[in-house]
Amino acid sequence: MSATMNPQSDAARLLGDASSVQLIGHISPDGDAIGSALGLAWALRDMGKVVRVACADPVPRALQFLPGASEVRQTSIAGPSLVVAVDCSDRQRMGSAYDAQMLVGRPLLVIDHHESNRGFGDVDLIDPKVAATTQIVLRLISHLGVPLSATIATCLLTGLITDTQGFRTPNTDSGVLADAVTLCDAGAPLTEIMDQSFGRSPMCKLRLWGSVFERSCLENGVLWAEVSRQDVAQAGASSETLSGLVNYLATIDEAQVALLLEEQPNNRVDVSLRARPGYNVAVVAGSLGGGGHELAAGCQVNGTLSEVRANVLEALAEQMLARA
Amino acid sequence: MSATMNPQSDAARLLGDASSVQLIGHISPDGDAIGSALGLAWALRDMGKVVRVACADPVPRALQFLPGASEVRQTSIAGPSLVVAVDCSDRQRMGSAYDAQMLVGRPLLVIDHHESNRGFGDVDLIDPKVAATTQIVLRLISHLGVPLSATIATCLLTGLITDTQGFRTPNTDSGVLADAVTLCDAGAPLTEIMDQSFGRSPMCKLRLWGSVFERSCLENGVLWAEVSRQDVAQAGASSETLSGLVNYLATIDEAQVALLLEEQPNNRVDVSLRARPGYNVAVVAGSLGGGGHELAAGCQVNGTLSEVRANVLEALAEQMLARA
Repeated sequence: MSATMNPQSDAARLLGDASSVQLIGHISPDGDAIGSALGLAWALRDMGKVVRVACADPVPRALQFLPGASEVRQTSIAGPSLVVAVDCSDRQRMGSAYDAQMLVGRPLLVIDHHESNRGFGDVDLIDPKVAATTQIVLRLISHLGVPLSATIATCLLTGLITDTQGFRTPNTDSGVLADAVTLCDAGAPLTEIMDQSFGRSPMCKLRLWGSVFERSCLENGVLWAEVSRQDVAQAGASSETLSGLVNYLATIDEAQVALLLEEQPNNRVDVSLRARPGYNVAVVAGSLGGGGHELAAGCQVNGTLSEVRANVLEALAEQMLARA
Repeated sequence: MSATMNPQSDAARLLGDASSVQLIGHISPDGDAIGSALGLAWALRDMGKVVRVACADPVPRALQFLPGASEVRQTSIAGPSLVVAVDCSDRQRMGSAYDAQMLVGRPLLVIDHHESNRGFGDVDLIDPKVAATTQIVLRLISHLGVPLSATIATCLLTGLITDTQGFRTPNTDSGVLADAVTLCDAGAPLTEIMDQSFGRSPMCKLRLWGSVFERSCLENGVLWAEVSRQDVAQAGASSETLSGLVNYLATIDEAQVALLLEEQPNNRVDVSLRARPGYNVAVVAGSLGGGGHELAAGCQVNGTLSEVRANVLEALAEQMLARA
């Protein structure tokens, strides 16, 4: 096809022409990846197309209430008319769900909102100004002329709510809320989505977070906490239980930077960093082989918890000193 | 004045005729009380009126960022043309901020959204269908023809966000979100309000909540936790630090009922109860001299923590047995 200056029209034409579509979300899928993929899938089915959704990793428990979640596969089907990468900032983010052999020669449509996305499809529908990929999908579905069903709206609102942490991230503007109004009016159950996304935790999380809260240390504006594999096992928890913990630590007034160290197998430690505006933890994560954004970054470092903690605290102190 | 069938017109006429207005929020003011009062105050000042805001208790720390918060007094002025009770479900909720002698003979306008409000003013502008009193104030300001300034919008959006716990309560509908769009478009800083309302905690809260999480017990579907005065003092915290804790406990999957027992001076214990739909903790709180709603209730009981805990757990077991 010949690309125009309007990627939304190009995307709509690709989708309109396809009889079967393979949608692919990113590895370790979140609400925006799953919500965008399932929302678009239901719209395309309403257009009479055969649609499959794949993610390299399983759908998290908190998203399994979404209509169609149980049909998400970990691999793609052979020979679809079109492949769509959803919420993936680059080709690698599709992981093993993108089987290059199975999908050889098939056109690729990229739908995403990540600023770092340089485009890797035959058509790239990328808008870094929106807070969630589901907002791009919402416009695309409207462009396709598919009526917004409650099923579609539920998937899309879930992506919007999870990616903005319940309308709390700095990129939540009145456009986000206006899209939420559209989706609620189409039948998306706001309260249920909020409850599924933020209102439910297992007892083991209470125990694990409690012990982390009690053992956390505040040193020179850095609030740090360590979680060993034994801590996780003793609480009867899993690594997923720690999701959101570093964000919570970052809400503490006295902390300029929050640091969570999570012990992994094979003498490795996962390092998560959050900062208040004015600090740049991406530099610190980058110096240790990781990356991310100014205010939220991470890396994986070899060593024991205490070794890695000493390294990261030193790197942070240098960065904070350089700033002062 | 002669009351019409349209309390909004009556309220607008009362306000329009007044040269000086005393606004009064409820005791232990929350974001909706302060936000409604300050939002309306700024609108009335834009109309050229002299306006004072009073609450019997001080403005909580988390609301002190609101424009005008520092001018809220704990007592009312003498002889205003009009008194307005804001977000108060009955006359007693104004507490000592309503000085009957100072305000004798002054007309009273009631603006509120509580279902239990039977009306106690000369004009009662009450709408239990909205999620926050600030939504009623928003319509009233529009009726008055006052342009929505960023200052007014900031106060009103804060009430809407705090009363819906960040758009998470079951009464959050698309009308709430649509009002939030209106307020954001008028210049209310959504992200800052979210951050002020939910994104900041002192270090002592992390310690106190951590110890409560670790010591909480799950028994027959009841998740209970005790906080002694010593616990609070040791964490360097205050009673305010426990705000929201019982709601958090209620998010635990395994809990049908969450119970928080907080030791008070003089051998008394504050009891807070939350339940999942299907249970009725108002009955239990009522049997112990308190009250509340089906899913959220409380009481104050004489006794030690362990005595009161035994009493409440027994009453809960009976209620849960009766239901089974």
